[in-house]
Amino acid sequence: MFTAAESDPRLSKEQAEPLEAKLRTALLKAQYARLQKTQRSLLIVIAGIDGAGKGAAVNLINEWMDARHIRTMAFGAPTPEELRYPPLWRYWQQLPAKGRTGIVFGSWYQPLLKEAAKRKPDQGKIQNLAQAIQEFESMLAQDGVQIVKLWYHLSRNAQKERTDKLLGSPDTAWQVRPGELKVRKKFNRLRGAGELAITLTQADHAPWQIIPSADPDVRAVATGQAVLAALRQRPASRSEPSPQKKMTSAAEAAAVNKKTPRRLENLDYTARLDGKEYDEQLAAWQSRLAGLVRHDKFKTRSLILAFEGQDAAGKGGAIRRVTHALDARQYHIHPISAPSDAELAHPYLWRFWRSLPLPGRVSVFDRSWYGRVLVERVEKLIAPQDWQRAYSEINQFEAQLSNNGAIIVKFWLAVTADEQLRRFHEREESPFKNFKITPDDWRNRKKWHSYVQAADEMLARTDTPQEPWHVLSANDKQHARVAVLRHIVETLEKALGKDKN
Amino acid sequence: MFTAAESDPRLSKEQAEPLEAKLRTALLKAQYARLQKTQRSLLIVIAGIDGAGKGAAVNLINEWMDARHIRTMAFGAPTPEELRYPPLWRYWQQLPAKGRTGIVFGSWYQPLLKEAAKRKPDQGKIQNLAQAIQEFESMLAQDGVQIVKLWYHLSRNAQKERTDKLLGSPDTAWQVRPGELKVRKKFNRLRGAGELAITLTQADHAPWQIIPSADPDVRAVATGQAVLAALRQRPASRSEPSPQKKMTSAAEAAAVNKKTPRRLENLDYTARLDGKEYDEQLAAWQSRLAGLVRHDKFKTRSLILAFEGQDAAGKGGAIRRVTHALDARQYHIHPISAPSDAELAHPYLWRFWRSLPLPGRVSVFDRSWYGRVLVERVEKLIAPQDWQRAYSEINQFEAQLSNNGAIIVKFWLAVTADEQLRRFHEREESPFKNFKITPDDWRNRKKWHSYVQAADEMLARTDTPQEPWHVLSANDKQHARVAVLRHIVETLEKALGKDKN
Repeated sequence: MFTAAESDPRLSKEQAEPLEAKLRTALLKAQYARLQKTQRSLLIVIAGIDGAGKGAAVNLINEWMDARHIRTMAFGAPTPEELRYPPLWRYWQQLPAKGRTGIVFGSWYQPLLKEAAKRKPDQGKIQNLAQAIQEFESMLAQDGVQIVKLWYHLSRNAQKERTDKLLGSPDTAWQVRPGELKVRKKFNRLRGAGELAITLTQADHAPWQIIPSADPDVRAVATGQAVLAALRQRPASRSEPSPQKKMTSAAEAAAVNKKTPRRLENLDYTARLDGKEYDEQLAAWQSRLAGLVRHDKFKTRSLILAFEGQDAAGKGGAIRRVTHALDARQYHIHPISAPSDAELAHPYLWRFWRSLPLPGRVSVFDRSWYGRVLVERVEKLIAPQDWQRAYSEINQFEAQLSNNGAIIVKFWLAVTADEQLRRFHEREESPFKNFKITPDDWRNRKKWHSYVQAADEMLARTDTPQEPWHVLSANDKQHARVAVLRHIVETLEKALGKDKN
Repeated sequence: MFTAAESDPRLSKEQAEPLEAKLRTALLKAQYARLQKTQRSLLIVIAGIDGAGKGAAVNLINEWMDARHIRTMAFGAPTPEELRYPPLWRYWQQLPAKGRTGIVFGSWYQPLLKEAAKRKPDQGKIQNLAQAIQEFESMLAQDGVQIVKLWYHLSRNAQKERTDKLLGSPDTAWQVRPGELKVRKKFNRLRGAGELAITLTQADHAPWQIIPSADPDVRAVATGQAVLAALRQRPASRSEPSPQKKMTSAAEAAAVNKKTPRRLENLDYTARLDGKEYDEQLAAWQSRLAGLVRHDKFKTRSLILAFEGQDAAGKGGAIRRVTHALDARQYHIHPISAPSDAELAHPYLWRFWRSLPLPGRVSVFDRSWYGRVLVERVEKLIAPQDWQRAYSEINQFEAQLSNNGAIIVKFWLAVTADEQLRRFHEREESPFKNFKITPDDWRNRKKWHSYVQAADEMLARTDTPQEPWHVLSANDKQHARVAVLRHIVETLEKALGKDKN
């Protein structure tokens, strides 16, 4: 894999100069063409042997292209704040918008390379890290982020020579980072780690390229060519399924739908809770919730509440009964409606990665990331393959949060079509509820069955043991509110180990 | 001030209900009207005696209005991350966009109230805190943020009664925060602190209102009425100066301009640095800079570099010579061009508050907040009073950063009109520089003298001892690059106490 790079190819100044001049013009043209036309952003991942000149390569890209449209995303060891979120959080925060280019320095490959370079690497850990990378890059690639990964490489001797030369003068010695001195001792292990990482994560949608780095001009030209090729690459046209394939998919889909449990239809909608009992239970559960979120054990966890359900099911009222028990400094409500321009210019889950709670805090989502497989599916706002892949993307997203200590509780507040109609009319007549009813609500109601089908499929495919759905009858609002509080309290007690006390 | 509130007025349910129903409808209407029409956001600052029901009031505003367009900005003790920035940083991050409403809970009044409630308050500190608040609120008010401040108040006895009643039942006891129990002991000091804070910060553009809080209905109605009045308030029409006033201002302005030193015109543009000497000096200064930003003493400071200058003065090239000496993980370049929609929907300095470096980091601004008094002034993008007040706003902004440990170095790279013309032609002819020259550049050049005049006035009014301007001849790029590095190094050495070693 590294044979060519380790032959340390060189270019004379006479060879390099015309090549570089041509490249610079081509890069600028390609960058501008892309800014105007493309719906994709470009991520250039920088990796390789320490002391191969990765920093110089990043400076070069910035120098050759219009740096105003390039964002260098440089990451060192995670900051204390970053450590409080899932490992990929910091990369999500800085993803470039469509048309823009990001250079990632200190990328999500760091933990994998570090583990693989150990004397006795943990193979299971390596597989897990590689899989997380595959899932992340695959999601980005399908969501409009083009990825190209550059591995800067040179022979052991050339690495030593380059470092020694820089160290030779006080004016350049500072360019040598401490890690680069250790490379010569463990060159073979670093080399092996790179080989393994590249093998495990090589993919058509996120290809690796080896950049020979012994000679600055070869490194520059190879970098420029790799970036140019990436800028010029067109998005893989989404292969329309062949008619036969289409039929199979349709048949498969029908089969899936037949098998999908009809949880909403089969729910018992009769539960009721009357005035006095409601008041007492509400106060009791709120009191327990209030104690839990103020408990020391909650300080290292976070709580994420997702509320979905038919229009007029009473999500807002249920949320208010929950937040009533929380400290106003502790929670944030995120009402999720149509994405903004900035949100549309980023991968779908970006807006949710930006709304995650810190440990000790609560994020309440009034509608959530499930809009992808509900409204965006039913209203045909996205292509079928986009919502179809969303199920597993959402499961992976939630698993990352759970694994990092978040406690996720998901609710579907279910009402019957009759009850919804009654509430729509009620809203229209109430002077301070009529802002809640819009032509959209009536339009959605006409698609009642499509929404129910989408919801049933969502429930079937995203009801995981760690992040289960709670489907509650909300035909009686008071019953639903108390049930919501009870599920949150029970989940929290279990998660905090308080249920055994 | 508090006499009326401490009489603990009450409303019967029969009186309250029709009032509240009317208020809710009016609030919703006013909220929607404002969302559609206004160019201003609304900040509702919540303060008052602990145990007066401030949390309940916030919940009530959210319940009565459309909570989707309200952001509750709740702040407790500063987080470790927040502590690394100037005190007002966290409030700037969350300012609502135009048309939106923010409820601030745990506002910038906390430090002032805490100090004022001490047994032996530090009067100097109180004056400083109050002045910072006045400046902050005045800037917000002039920049499209309407502010209304609510002080929740009740008598000592009523506070005790309310707290005791909540404590009486396990279902409501959790609503009492620890601080509320201590109120009865130090009621008079808290009352005095409130009185002082209100007196010191009462302003037409950010008025205080006292909300009687002993009775939940009175509290609700008074809150609703205060918010309604704020929502309905029209922006104070910008009083056009009278002809006489205008003349005076014009005369004053002319006088100011006459007195403004012509630093750009009087600069010596002859300095040159030749090939070999340039290479050596560049390497030497870069090496010193590299050492400084990697020094332990820099870990608690940050570096903010602002580059301004005529078009084609060589800002980009100078910046690259600086960042060359920095660790890529350590710095971020912020190219400042026309503001985005989101930036336009916030006060002017918002975008810069969002780009501040953490301790140990460097933010490089390629053009900066000085655009307010340069391009926005010359191109008449804003009203004269907006750029006129910007000088002191900018000085206050920089002082906040400096007081918090930031090291600010500001550069004006100056070229003569002839040299600019030569570079424009050179750029047009170079295949990889012609992206740098646009019709805008030629247009700006026609206004050369207006820009020089604006720059001279900017230099005169924002050249402070703590954040001085360095005006450098950039007719020779190499001279300018080395001079930039030298000023940064010298400033850093002085700030880090390394110049005496």
